[in-house]
Amino acid sequence: MNDQEVFDLHRGGKMAMNATVGLANRDDLSLAYTPGVAVVCEAIAADPELTREYTWTGNTVAVVSDGSAVLGLGNIGPRAAMPVMEGKAILFKQFGGVDAVPICLDTQDTEQIIETVTALAPSFGGINLEDISAPRCFEIERRLDDALPIPVFHDDQHGTAIVVLAALRNAARLLTRDLGDLRVVVSGAGAAGIAVTKMLIAGGVDPARVIICDSKGTLYSERADLGGDSEKGRLARLTNLSRLSNGIEGALIGADVLIGVSGGQIAESSVAAMAADGIIFALANPTPEVHPEIAGRHAAIVATGRSDFPNQINNVLAFPGIFRGALDARARSITERMKLAAADAIAGLVADDLLPDRIVPSPLDPRVAAAVSAAVAHAA
Amino acid sequence: MNDQEVFDLHRGGKMAMNATVGLANRDDLSLAYTPGVAVVCEAIAADPELTREYTWTGNTVAVVSDGSAVLGLGNIGPRAAMPVMEGKAILFKQFGGVDAVPICLDTQDTEQIIETVTALAPSFGGINLEDISAPRCFEIERRLDDALPIPVFHDDQHGTAIVVLAALRNAARLLTRDLGDLRVVVSGAGAAGIAVTKMLIAGGVDPARVIICDSKGTLYSERADLGGDSEKGRLARLTNLSRLSNGIEGALIGADVLIGVSGGQIAESSVAAMAADGIIFALANPTPEVHPEIAGRHAAIVATGRSDFPNQINNVLAFPGIFRGALDARARSITERMKLAAADAIAGLVADDLLPDRIVPSPLDPRVAAAVSAAVAHAA
Repeated sequence: MNDQEVFDLHRGGKMAMNATVGLANRDDLSLAYTPGVAVVCEAIAADPELTREYTWTGNTVAVVSDGSAVLGLGNIGPRAAMPVMEGKAILFKQFGGVDAVPICLDTQDTEQIIETVTALAPSFGGINLEDISAPRCFEIERRLDDALPIPVFHDDQHGTAIVVLAALRNAARLLTRDLGDLRVVVSGAGAAGIAVTKMLIAGGVDPARVIICDSKGTLYSERADLGGDSEKGRLARLTNLSRLSNGIEGALIGADVLIGVSGGQIAESSVAAMAADGIIFALANPTPEVHPEIAGRHAAIVATGRSDFPNQINNVLAFPGIFRGALDARARSITERMKLAAADAIAGLVADDLLPDRIVPSPLDPRVAAAVSAAVAHAA
Repeated sequence: MNDQEVFDLHRGGKMAMNATVGLANRDDLSLAYTPGVAVVCEAIAADPELTREYTWTGNTVAVVSDGSAVLGLGNIGPRAAMPVMEGKAILFKQFGGVDAVPICLDTQDTEQIIETVTALAPSFGGINLEDISAPRCFEIERRLDDALPIPVFHDDQHGTAIVVLAALRNAARLLTRDLGDLRVVVSGAGAAGIAVTKMLIAGGVDPARVIICDSKGTLYSERADLGGDSEKGRLARLTNLSRLSNGIEGALIGADVLIGVSGGQIAESSVAAMAADGIIFALANPTPEVHPEIAGRHAAIVATGRSDFPNQINNVLAFPGIFRGALDARARSITERMKLAAADAIAGLVADDLLPDRIVPSPLDPRVAAAVSAAVAHAA
């Protein structure tokens, strides 16, 4: 892959809209547009629930970003974010059969984002928030989910968290360990780090055995710079009960699991101090926190976010099936129960056939979205 | 066409989104999504003009409505408006090759509409406003056009006005009359009536020979209920210089042209009082202000908005080519010059072959959008 290939592929964008009805003659026009369309409008005016039946909104998700935290590129703004949102949109279609529309917003103000998405919500059956920086992403998601009658899902948080839980379940199964016994270090306390920690705890990890690190060191309840009311502050009180405060090097001594969602590099000497038969998920893209070859010298199971190493932990395992299931079930929210069901479904697909380099299915495995959507719809 | 046929056709909506690039294997994923996409994002961050080149926005228009003035159905809200906006979107694709996305807004507040459309504008190459009631539509269009670097076009105003001007040009040509000599009555002073009047004046009709009527009678400069600063107030000062105030019945006596864009019924006795060799465009849908058979008894040329009578004055003759041309030329606005060029292009297609029942091309004539887009791009 060279840059010219990439630019050639992206020229003109990666998606198109198409009619699914004929428009070849006057009769077609009269049925699909005026005057025929009026009876459909009147039916929906009388019963708004019919919108899902008689418009494309029942199968359509907005992929909404403000361009503030795009890939590892940071705050590149809405226009530069668009190629990523288009990519996301076509993955929605390819794997979940969901029609997705990329919406990149010319504001990074929390209130304006909430107002804008609220205003355009009748046009969609769900809202996938994407690449919005922490901590704004937490409030934006929570308030939109409260306000709107359709599912709202911040994929950078929950997509990642669901796939990490699935992978950790299978890694623990392979090593015959209980999730509740594992000592877990999460490196990174942004959107993904916070959501991964919450999901792991919901899935059975003991919060007392978790230590979260951010760029300033470990989180613990007395750290002065954490707002008590913030997501970070709340998790700081739940985790690291021994108040270990000597940074990630200290936290990793004797740890069973390292989950990197920070992008910061972690030294080989630090991972060498982990317990035997360790698990390392180094998920930063394109440069993992620990190179998988180095990680493999010190851990039994290694995963990354990259397609060129085994065990790719990729959100595409989750989001197409999550929204497919939520739309099919006409769910108004994506609940924790639905997320846990998604993680179980992903893990279950390879559970009978586990190997150290196969703890999650391939992102291209067509069974994944079907299994996830069925589990999510059932849980809804 | 029965209702069941219509509902069956609209089930599931009328459009879908599709990828235009392959996603079959890991290489495809790496090119279209991460990690490949990052170089495209970085290029756009460095030069935002590249958004048009490397995303679908260069070919994409939002069809935005607040559901306040939908067809003849009135204020039915955003959900019930969606079938119409989807219909519009697929006409954009069919006739103009433009990818259009229906956006129905959950607000009818002028400020909120302007803020919302401004926020989502980076996601589109143009904004087609649709079925927004007067007088809010004038301010919304004007302020968005001022604020945004992409074309903003309220189709109910300008689409209608452009096709009416094209039709009137050909009708006058057929009757060997000058536009500047015609006495014109416009019935309706909503979005379409105001825009039609302004377009006709821009195209050569003499404002002193125009009389506009609303539900309360004729407009004239002293009428107390017209805000001097409103669009209606401005046109009241320009037109009806004889201050005729006895309603449409009086206005039609001796008039050459009646243009109905009101939906209100007009009595046969009134049209019978028009001058010989008159022109009647009765454009309300589905019920014209004067039934075309009745109009035909008293006028030389009759047009309607309906597909089951000759001379269908349909916006689809204008908007696909207008936006195709504006996008191709990368125009920042759709100017009066571009609108006049569009009207000339539409009229020109049948100008050598005029008949009383063929003053405009068929809405299905594939030459139309090509001719309009070329003329618009040239004028831009």
